[in-house]
Amino acid sequence: MLVVMNANATEAEIAGVVRVIEALGLRAHTMPGATRTAIGITGNKGAISLQHFENLPGVAEAIRVSKPYKLITLDLKQDRTIVDIGGAKIGNGSLAIIAGPCAIETRQQTFAVAEVVKKSGAKFFRGGAFKPRTSPYAFAGLGEEGLKMLVEVREKFGLRIVSEALDEPGVDLVEKYADMIQIGARNMQNYTLLRRVGRSKLPVLLKRGMAATLEEWLLAAEYIMSEGNYQVVLCERGVRTFAQHTRNTLDLAAVPAVRRISHLPIIIDASHGTGKNYMVTPLARAGVAVGADGLMIEVHCKPEEALSDGAQALTLDEFEQMADEVRAIHEVIN
Amino acid sequence: MLVVMNANATEAEIAGVVRVIEALGLRAHTMPGATRTAIGITGNKGAISLQHFENLPGVAEAIRVSKPYKLITLDLKQDRTIVDIGGAKIGNGSLAIIAGPCAIETRQQTFAVAEVVKKSGAKFFRGGAFKPRTSPYAFAGLGEEGLKMLVEVREKFGLRIVSEALDEPGVDLVEKYADMIQIGARNMQNYTLLRRVGRSKLPVLLKRGMAATLEEWLLAAEYIMSEGNYQVVLCERGVRTFAQHTRNTLDLAAVPAVRRISHLPIIIDASHGTGKNYMVTPLARAGVAVGADGLMIEVHCKPEEALSDGAQALTLDEFEQMADEVRAIHEVIN
Amino acid sequence: MLVVMNANATEAEIAGVVRVIEALGLRAHTMPGATRTAIGITGNKGAISLQHFENLPGVAEAIRVSKPYKLITLDLKQDRTIVDIGGAKIGNGSLAIIAGPCAIETRQQTFAVAEVVKKSGAKFFRGGAFKPRTSPYAFAGLGEEGLKMLVEVREKFGLRIVSEALDEPGVDLVEKYADMIQIGARNMQNYTLLRRVGRSKLPVLLKRGMAATLEEWLLAAEYIMSEGNYQVVLCERGVRTFAQHTRNTLDLAAVPAVRRISHLPIIIDASHGTGKNYMVTPLARAGVAVGADGLMIEVHCKPEEALSDGAQALTLDEFEQMADEVRAIHEVIN
Amino acid sequence: MLVVMNANATEAEIAGVVRVIEALGLRAHTMPGATRTAIGITGNKGAISLQHFENLPGVAEAIRVSKPYKLITLDLKQDRTIVDIGGAKIGNGSLAIIAGPCAIETRQQTFAVAEVVKKSGAKFFRGGAFKPRTSPYAFAGLGEEGLKMLVEVREKFGLRIVSEALDEPGVDLVEKYADMIQIGARNMQNYTLLRRVGRSKLPVLLKRGMAATLEEWLLAAEYIMSEGNYQVVLCERGVRTFAQHTRNTLDLAAVPAVRRISHLPIIIDASHGTGKNYMVTPLARAGVAVGADGLMIEVHCKPEEALSDGAQALTLDEFEQMADEVRAIHEVIN
Repeated sequence: MLVVMNANATEAEIAGVVRVIEALGLRAHTMPGATRTAIGITGNKGAISLQHFENLPGVAEAIRVSKPYKLITLDLKQDRTIVDIGGAKIGNGSLAIIAGPCAIETRQQTFAVAEVVKKSGAKFFRGGAFKPRTSPYAFAGLGEEGLKMLVEVREKFGLRIVSEALDEPGVDLVEKYADMIQIGARNMQNYTLLRRVGRSKLPVLLKRGMAATLEEWLLAAEYIMSEGNYQVVLCERGVRTFAQHTRNTLDLAAVPAVRRISHLPIIIDASHGTGKNYMVTPLARAGVAVGADGLMIEVHCKPEEALSDGAQALTLDEFEQMADEVRAIHEVIN
Repeated sequence: MLVVMNANATEAEIAGVVRVIEALGLRAHTMPGATRTAIGITGNKGAISLQHFENLPGVAEAIRVSKPYKLITLDLKQDRTIVDIGGAKIGNGSLAIIAGPCAIETRQQTFAVAEVVKKSGAKFFRGGAFKPRTSPYAFAGLGEEGLKMLVEVREKFGLRIVSEALDEPGVDLVEKYADMIQIGARNMQNYTLLRRVGRSKLPVLLKRGMAATLEEWLLAAEYIMSEGNYQVVLCERGVRTFAQHTRNTLDLAAVPAVRRISHLPIIIDASHGTGKNYMVTPLARAGVAVGADGLMIEVHCKPEEALSDGAQALTLDEFEQMADEVRAIHEVIN
Repeated sequence: MLVVMNANATEAEIAGVVRVIEALGLRAHTMPGATRTAIGITGNKGAISLQHFENLPGVAEAIRVSKPYKLITLDLKQDRTIVDIGGAKIGNGSLAIIAGPCAIETRQQTFAVAEVVKKSGAKFFRGGAFKPRTSPYAFAGLGEEGLKMLVEVREKFGLRIVSEALDEPGVDLVEKYADMIQIGARNMQNYTLLRRVGRSKLPVLLKRGMAATLEEWLLAAEYIMSEGNYQVVLCERGVRTFAQHTRNTLDLAAVPAVRRISHLPIIIDASHGTGKNYMVTPLARAGVAVGADGLMIEVHCKPEEALSDGAQALTLDEFEQMADEVRAIHEVIN
Repeated sequence: MLVVMNANATEAEIAGVVRVIEALGLRAHTMPGATRTAIGITGNKGAISLQHFENLPGVAEAIRVSKPYKLITLDLKQDRTIVDIGGAKIGNGSLAIIAGPCAIETRQQTFAVAEVVKKSGAKFFRGGAFKPRTSPYAFAGLGEEGLKMLVEVREKFGLRIVSEALDEPGVDLVEKYADMIQIGARNMQNYTLLRRVGRSKLPVLLKRGMAATLEEWLLAAEYIMSEGNYQVVLCERGVRTFAQHTRNTLDLAAVPAVRRISHLPIIIDASHGTGKNYMVTPLARAGVAVGADGLMIEVHCKPEEALSDGAQALTLDEFEQMADEVRAIHEVIN
């Protein structure tokens, strides 16, 4: 932490801040400058609260320097994490494609999509059995019945199953039927849920919250890891901004930013990240080009009849075309 | 819903959209314009999905018109809702002040603050026993032990107790000890939790999510009400923007905006809404002046030693001064 | 500036950073910490560029500490600036109300509004002769003809005239006819224009840019002052956020934030800050309650016929009512 | 436009709105719905102001449907615009790379960079002679002297010159020496400047404003085109959001969004769009993969000594590597 004093702070005020620092068992480094004095603090193991200093007399600002995360960092573990989902890997240099309908609706729909997903070479199938919906009156998923259909997809097509859990009972069920637990954007700071999946044996796909800073997102991963589950994949899915031509603004710079700090793999959700069918393929290409470990893509056999998020789903044909395009880019950049 | 066609859409494309509308059992109103045709849709009871139309040939845009909420609206209930918290009211024209420490830390701290809160004329005491913390390593509250101290505050000072629940077991405990359940910003779209408090007999204080639109916030209230609990108070606590001089940007226009649509009371959290001690009193004054039904304020006997959010807490003296100032404004505008 | 090293930075990397600092003629303060070393820099007169350090080996982050402004600060001048507009003051503790139509349209409209503005006790009349319009096809103001009508308003009602200039020729004209030059949000970083009004003898009303940080806004004021014109009034008019219930999100916390750093007066534009007629009065009340030095309010005799921004204009009756309400609040808080 | 009535609007209120519509010479289409009535308006040539309706009795909301732009649209011109900059093209399917230092500093620096830009196969050289700087005390460019160095670059290397103008006298100079005029983000709504370059014979590179919606940006292009200059290239350079890991959030979805509405070419500025050296290459790859017509990239021979924006400049080696990577992607996707 760095405490910056006012330009006209007195010697007594500076001494007062130093006393508070030392009373906390820390070391103060006073740096008199041309216009004002700054006081560096060292000796702390974790983050110090700004609040100890911001309201002291003569203080202009307290600036946090130490980052509050540990387990997610390259400082701690320099090898990239490879996440193993039932034998299929994310983070090993291959391009992971997780595709499927937003929500599991019927066996027919599910199988029609799974067949094309399998044919494209993708290894992961997504499908929501529990859907977080903004309106209490919207379709909220088939629940356990939907998860059972996903098991059939795994058995028939050999695809690994990724499905979202919204609460602790939901985690119990997803653990029973699926291969990877998805935590959605709305639950990124649902700490009870994060701790629960931190005690799961399944890997976790952690979506970025709608307005989460990079630090908050990484701390959500830290929550999961601090309970013992190190198999975490981050998923950028767009953030909320003033822009109105998309549902969310896809923040692809999150990929190099995460790579610089963390050993965890990161993938791009080009469907939620745009919200518009015609933008999904271009942004999926961009996600691969920026260096992501994979993609999450919503596919539907009849998007115009989808019970949830049809406007952003690719048709089966569009998905096959997209898969070809992104693989070509993945080859070129590796 | 309104479907806007491209300027060069063909007659066949227009007829195609009309067919889709009629196939859904709805009525199409074709409006040929100077440059393009628009097609109005009526006959729907709830909201129609944009997805049925956005990808049809010749369609430029589908614009949603109906709002997806019902129970929260003035259309449904024109009398303002008055929420009763153990006999004390919010929404009846008086100024409700909910004050107390961010987190319950010790009996001594709690009682010192409660005494001043009581003395100021406020009727509600807040204090977190379960704290959602961005970092897994930060103080997360005393849990049930903290709630028991809050009961003592009620007994000794006659203040009604408002405390946050983070999950279903937490709701069970808060229901046992407190008078009103707070749902925090991070949980505004935790639908399992919303449904659970919707089945509670206690009133609910629903904070706005960090990046929630007005519509999403009102739909979160609709979730609670759709389970049968109509005693909901909304709380604006600032939203996330690019601005860096505050922790959040307090969106006071939410007060007149909510009033125009909904019968629910709305209060302002000037502590989280600013994140800075020196801004709390001015923004509390503004919150009353804009017409809110009350305020939520964090107070601490020794903010510099607070285990959580000390930088934004008022001291006891500052709180008393603030209470005087806001009451004077409340009198003037009523 | 503070340079934070990676946790595993080598001694040689630390020494390398110190060498760069010393080569710039500055002093390095090395602070070894529990997990990483930070290096404070002092001795600089102005701001140092982060770029000297961010790409050096072993560096995690460079954090700017010194602020790049001087003339606007309380460090430099502790007395609050009082701006004199033709004998009427802003910043002297009174409540300055600047009211009038968005655009000057006709003499009749202008006089009808001016009469009510005068009657309300306000001292300043606003009216645009040059309007920045998002569309090239929208009404862009009457130009010099409009300014001449404003002169008649000054002569007849004794109101001081505030009018916007969009470019250097516009400043020449506004200087000729008006008492205060307004720089609009879109031009907050039009540095040619800022330097030009910095050489004017008229005081300047500087609106905050649509997405300007506090620092950028204060630096825009610094541009004006650095040319010799110290008569600057800041005007918060809302910033762009994801929120859709208003045209802009009014950031009232800017008032205490500016007060803490700068001696310049600050007022609130509750019309652009909301964009909705029914929100203007509540937010104007809030602006006074938060402690602003004044208000800017759009008034129109027939808002539904206004050629520009009618949706946010108050009617004459509404304006009179608002003026009464805000004066009552101003009295109470002073 | 669509006017949505309150659920409990009376017949008289509906008739009142229809009367206002017809008085404007337009046609009203009343659509009674299950819960409320909506009234469509047709017959307007341009956009109608919302303000005529929003404050009428019984009106819940007025929704704009017509877009206010014409010349930029595919409706008007279905062939993609190819912009000709001294014989080199943007928008013809090739990948345009505009590279060079942020600011022209010395002849030596300029030539060192130009040599590598030329060698990479790029056809366009950028370099600022007039720099808009947030602080009045920062280096603001060499002015005409810098432009003269750019002419030498054109003569020696055959590169086309792109340079920014900040005001009308600046346009005169850039016209004299360069091949394309850049309008920066801060000036995107400087309408005097837009009209001036609209009367230029040089093509214009129009950067998106820091918080500009797609519509505002396209309307800025419309300003230029409405004066007769149809040679406009759009440049996405990142928008301001809450995210702090980048200088700006690069909104790559703007590329497919613009393509769907407009015939104008669009390029990506990966330097300002990230603000961090280590992110430029990944985001440049993403920009090409998303389908942009080109890239703008800052390159410096010694970024750590750059007088402006060094933190985001690529070194000469990094630039060559980037150029190879983006060309490989461009080939694959075409």
